[in-house]
Amino acid sequence: MPDLILHEYAESGNCYKIRLTAAHVGAVLERREYDIRAGATRTAAFRETINAAGLIPVLQVGDRFLPESGAACWYLADGSALIPDDRFERAEMLRWMFFEQYSHEPAVAVLRFWTRGGLDRLSDFERQQAAAKRIAGDAALQLMDKHLNGRSFFAGQALSLADIALYAYTHVADEAGFVMGDYSHVAAWLARVAAAPGHVPMDA
Amino acid sequence: MPDLILHEYAESGNCYKIRLTAAHVGAVLERREYDIRAGATRTAAFRETINAAGLIPVLQVGDRFLPESGAACWYLADGSALIPDDRFERAEMLRWMFFEQYSHEPAVAVLRFWTRGGLDRLSDFERQQAAAKRIAGDAALQLMDKHLNGRSFFAGQALSLADIALYAYTHVADEAGFVMGDYSHVAAWLARVAAAPGHVPMDA
Repeated sequence: MPDLILHEYAESGNCYKIRLTAAHVGAVLERREYDIRAGATRTAAFRETINAAGLIPVLQVGDRFLPESGAACWYLADGSALIPDDRFERAEMLRWMFFEQYSHEPAVAVLRFWTRGGLDRLSDFERQQAAAKRIAGDAALQLMDKHLNGRSFFAGQALSLADIALYAYTHVADEAGFVMGDYSHVAAWLARVAAAPGHVPMDA
Repeated sequence: MPDLILHEYAESGNCYKIRLTAAHVGAVLERREYDIRAGATRTAAFRETINAAGLIPVLQVGDRFLPESGAACWYLADGSALIPDDRFERAEMLRWMFFEQYSHEPAVAVLRFWTRGGLDRLSDFERQQAAAKRIAGDAALQLMDKHLNGRSFFAGQALSLADIALYAYTHVADEAGFVMGDYSHVAAWLARVAAAPGHVPMDA
């Protein structure tokens, strides 16, 4: 594999997903930190070289740049046991990765980011959005809880990228004010993911 | 392949993606239509059997159900030329599929849905969201235009699922009020995708 550099903000769950995938497959990442609260990814230099969208994470593979956490996880895990061999299970894994980015992250991750930055700093419009995100986040957690009733992992019988993608922000959803005691199947699954060989915590 | 049923709302670009993928790989889909404006996917029966999230599209594969358009497209295209053989290009294809769901669809598709339903019916909160989605949609189209400068397709040298995913709502973005004349590389790419052998229009 070419040299790998992760352009990241370590507190971001989207960046943690990539580090967690790398740990499971034994890939070594050089890490470069950007303070997104100070606008470090919005500079002209960052946009010209690393990601025109001005966002992290970006996985640098040799001299090529790969934005989007799900794509970076796939690149690292391609050919490994983190991607199921079965055609339907592979698609089901992607189902939960797309769910995470469409229905979970915009609610749970953004609320966590706003909460950590201070909810009193939100504009009126953001406050209205926060209320909608609270409802959407609980709906996402409920759907996960229902799916995990009777299942050990999200797709197939083993840990996959779907679990890694959903673990990243779910295990810190309490920091966004979600009451995780309401979701017992999610809690058991969080413990299973954290106990898997090769697991690394977010602050590693 | 098991029998395939697409649970859909035909006007939705997310459903069209799946039909377009099926046309390219020669898969036959039985189609079942749900009037989402009348709440046909929010019923208890739909949630119990087809998708607990109450959303279309869902690709039914035999007796199993696969929500999320990107996952359904992957299932149909798995092993075909729509998914690049090269490891980096495969990840780059996913990069644009995740971008579509995270940064493009929530802006362009939702604005189109609201516009078709009548913008005068929006609440004040939705009106504020619409203004934010206008900015986000133009940013997504600009990023696509920049990426397509000097490239024929989004990932690798050939049509892939990334192009199909992005084509679905981009080719009707004018219905959401976006000025497509501003994006010349996007316009040329839209024509290339529409001219590809196996292409079918949205209303086919």
